[in-house]
Amino acid sequence: MTLTGDMLIGGQAIAGNRDAIHAINPTTDEVLAPGYAGGGREQVEQACALAWAAFDGYRETAPAVRARFLETIADEIEALGDALIERASAETGLPLARIQGERGRTCQQLRLFAQVVRAGEWLDVRVDPAQPGRQPLPRADLRQRQIALGPVAVFGASNFPLAFSVAGGDTASALASGCPVIVKAHGAHPGTSELVGRAVARAVRRSGLPDGVFSLLYGAGHEVGIALVTDPRVKAVGFTGSRAGGTALINAARARPEPIPVYAEMSSINPVFLFPAALAARGAALAQGFVGSLTQGAGQFCTNPGLLIARQGEPLDRFLDEAARLLERSPAQTMLTPAIHRAYVAGVRALAGNGKARLVMRGAESLGPNQGQAHLFVAQAEDFLADPRLQEEVFGAASLVVQCGSDEALREVAERLEGQLTATLHLDEADLPAARTLVPTLERKAGRLLVNGWPTGVEVAPAMVHGGPFPATSDARATSVGTAAMLRFLRPVCYQDFPDSLLPASLAFANPLQLRRLLDGQREA
Amino acid sequence: MTLTGDMLIGGQAIAGNRDAIHAINPTTDEVLAPGYAGGGREQVEQACALAWAAFDGYRETAPAVRARFLETIADEIEALGDALIERASAETGLPLARIQGERGRTCQQLRLFAQVVRAGEWLDVRVDPAQPGRQPLPRADLRQRQIALGPVAVFGASNFPLAFSVAGGDTASALASGCPVIVKAHGAHPGTSELVGRAVARAVRRSGLPDGVFSLLYGAGHEVGIALVTDPRVKAVGFTGSRAGGTALINAARARPEPIPVYAEMSSINPVFLFPAALAARGAALAQGFVGSLTQGAGQFCTNPGLLIARQGEPLDRFLDEAARLLERSPAQTMLTPAIHRAYVAGVRALAGNGKARLVMRGAESLGPNQGQAHLFVAQAEDFLADPRLQEEVFGAASLVVQCGSDEALREVAERLEGQLTATLHLDEADLPAARTLVPTLERKAGRLLVNGWPTGVEVAPAMVHGGPFPATSDARATSVGTAAMLRFLRPVCYQDFPDSLLPASLAFANPLQLRRLLDGQREA
Repeated sequence: MTLTGDMLIGGQAIAGNRDAIHAINPTTDEVLAPGYAGGGREQVEQACALAWAAFDGYRETAPAVRARFLETIADEIEALGDALIERASAETGLPLARIQGERGRTCQQLRLFAQVVRAGEWLDVRVDPAQPGRQPLPRADLRQRQIALGPVAVFGASNFPLAFSVAGGDTASALASGCPVIVKAHGAHPGTSELVGRAVARAVRRSGLPDGVFSLLYGAGHEVGIALVTDPRVKAVGFTGSRAGGTALINAARARPEPIPVYAEMSSINPVFLFPAALAARGAALAQGFVGSLTQGAGQFCTNPGLLIARQGEPLDRFLDEAARLLERSPAQTMLTPAIHRAYVAGVRALAGNGKARLVMRGAESLGPNQGQAHLFVAQAEDFLADPRLQEEVFGAASLVVQCGSDEALREVAERLEGQLTATLHLDEADLPAARTLVPTLERKAGRLLVNGWPTGVEVAPAMVHGGPFPATSDARATSVGTAAMLRFLRPVCYQDFPDSLLPASLAFANPLQLRRLLDGQREA
Repeated sequence: MTLTGDMLIGGQAIAGNRDAIHAINPTTDEVLAPGYAGGGREQVEQACALAWAAFDGYRETAPAVRARFLETIADEIEALGDALIERASAETGLPLARIQGERGRTCQQLRLFAQVVRAGEWLDVRVDPAQPGRQPLPRADLRQRQIALGPVAVFGASNFPLAFSVAGGDTASALASGCPVIVKAHGAHPGTSELVGRAVARAVRRSGLPDGVFSLLYGAGHEVGIALVTDPRVKAVGFTGSRAGGTALINAARARPEPIPVYAEMSSINPVFLFPAALAARGAALAQGFVGSLTQGAGQFCTNPGLLIARQGEPLDRFLDEAARLLERSPAQTMLTPAIHRAYVAGVRALAGNGKARLVMRGAESLGPNQGQAHLFVAQAEDFLADPRLQEEVFGAASLVVQCGSDEALREVAERLEGQLTATLHLDEADLPAARTLVPTLERKAGRLLVNGWPTGVEVAPAMVHGGPFPATSDARATSVGTAAMLRFLRPVCYQDFPDSLLPASLAFANPLQLRRLLDGQREA
């Protein structure tokens, strides 16, 4: 399985003609071959033309065909075997076991979307039968279904080289919805991207689908990304990454005459509220859970608990002591890329130099390149409220504890939080009344609320929301994880008085797909 | 029922302190009292503060309470009696019977949303029960529901002073979703707006809801609108009007740090395809249906058929002859405002002066101020394709017939259309194969496709889509008419491992609202 360094445009291997990107093994700082020469406007043009040509046919594939295609992608990814695991681990510094787990999640996600495509809930079929005798005017026969938006540009994340990358959640949900996908590979794992991209291209071919259903592009600078987001044939964008990166794509999309949805998942510090009774009863266990969640995967998760909020006092002091004790022993961990490591060091340094945040403890010293030490800071609520920089995400295993002198201060901290992916409440029975008054605020702030858990670990399930108000994402109406992620790439079309022979199968009179339709506003049993 | 000229901010009558707007009776050019002094930033601030304060409470009102509130608005509008009908007719030039019908539609719409709120489908409840024994990791209990986005700014349309105005579809669907509403009244019917606004405010009071649930502002310039759209407490915008107006609001919203959805319904020429067999078999009947749809309400509908497309030849010539014969006899009709009449005259003049569009016929001469004469033009497909100005909406009873020399030309005309609210196919059995090849293109172009009907007349029903790709609207994923309009103002929130006592009723373990939930991805029977 030799890597070629080529892009994949509608299944064809195409060499780029711009500067090459190279992966770096962050564990050793070794530069990994091959180089991935970047594409430019001309390759974007080619990929968009093919995607557009494929669109009408692909979006009308039967649910069974599209489901089988998604399953074939999963099969092809598994068929890559250890070569994928080893390359992904080398490119990211993530342990083999973690990558194996992530591959499992990625393939399970594709198979789950296959089930969802077959079940057909996403079509949201609505039928209002004609009422020819209605007074004063007859009612026409109205039928509604969802159709795919069009080609989708996907920008993968650095921290999940499989599950949020070339064949990750954005790609799986867009393909499930009937949208062709053009991926711009993340520069940190181009070899992993090539392997997975070839697996997807093989699945396209094996499924007899038009080539343009999938393309994979590389690019060192912004040229490819901006060209993709501004191409009139691209109808939606999926992005997971930094606030700066997401903002650049949002601004590029705004330059279009036609507005399109940009689903950017950007930054979140995932506040965790420790309520008094819980903190008093089981502070040590909470500290253990917290440090485990904070340091998992070197803290490189969008749902990493970067902010703890509690009433000051002895229970919180004991919690901090225990967290410090655990943190001190936590080994430094290799981060994903030298750039991410540098940004983490700079972020931690900014917090330490802020003057309002006091360092509680740091983890064990680095033993190799690009290793991040965990950091725990503490600040007073008044200082947190006065300085928005204390709310900036530090991507990695750093967290800030905000000590509140009163319930009012705690409530104000909650009210002043920016939008988040998650918000967590640790509580016991006696904390319920206080928690109840906080939930409405947190509902306005976050896409997922947890009780007595930790936000890391995002289940791929129908009820999951991995999203939230700005700046956690650019569109609080959407989730990028879970089966509802498909809804991002669909739009409704109404068919009025269509003869049965002109209707798609999902709307046909006899309901051949056996959907539970909304019939005259009532859900069919 | 004396009109005061005051704004309504959280139920309080507040006099504006900017230039006043006055309604004009377009039938007589008479200026109608009272003046409506405009508000400014300070009144927007006040309305937004009240809406924000009302939001958390209002969005959690029980479905039955919110439904009853919507019904109470309808009752209060009906209780306005003839005063409303007479004022609306005077301000718009629309006949009394038309306004009566529109009142019926407006109240029926409010009552339909009440039913939908009670039924609870909009909550899209999803439950994935915990799997504590799952390997390798247990699964948490995940529950998802939809919650309201936040306060919504509504900009009413000129052409439906009731159904798309103060208590029209945007307001009804936003209130149904749990969003407080701040309306900027359309300057053409301020008296109608005051009457309806007072009815809504009375319903708020009678329902025991917080005052900030509803406010009504006036303003002659852009100050109020821009301040509303850029206020951080406003979380969505509903607009129906011109492309220029919609574009201004979209651009204003882009100045915000936090992106918000702007649902602008802007312009559409609603292409109608006349297929050969249908045209040959019943050209005269088609001409009759067409002229009826074109001239209804002086052509002042977003779904007015502004474009006909057909193969050239004798059947089309006969259709044109018959349409011309009918059009010649069609009386000029008073348009909504002097400005709309001037824009119509200018638009028709631009078409007539284009050189590529030939005038087929115009309707009867004007007999009074602000009366629009119907106009029918014809152009060749090549000219239509070469000149985008021939696609510009002329708001009023003007239509352009595009004659195509070949099926390829017809297909290219379809492919080059901008986004539309509707696209219509007139066809007989023999036309089905040709129609089938055109439908995929039209699905990409429009929100609603009709067979053998006319696009004017938009049913308020669960399966309706009144929306479509840009520039018909700013967001093709949305509809502004029909029960799915509520989905615009909602976002999902996931609750992980919440104890039953902390869950909202819609997610409680015992399912007290008896919702048909998505349970583990399967719809409950």
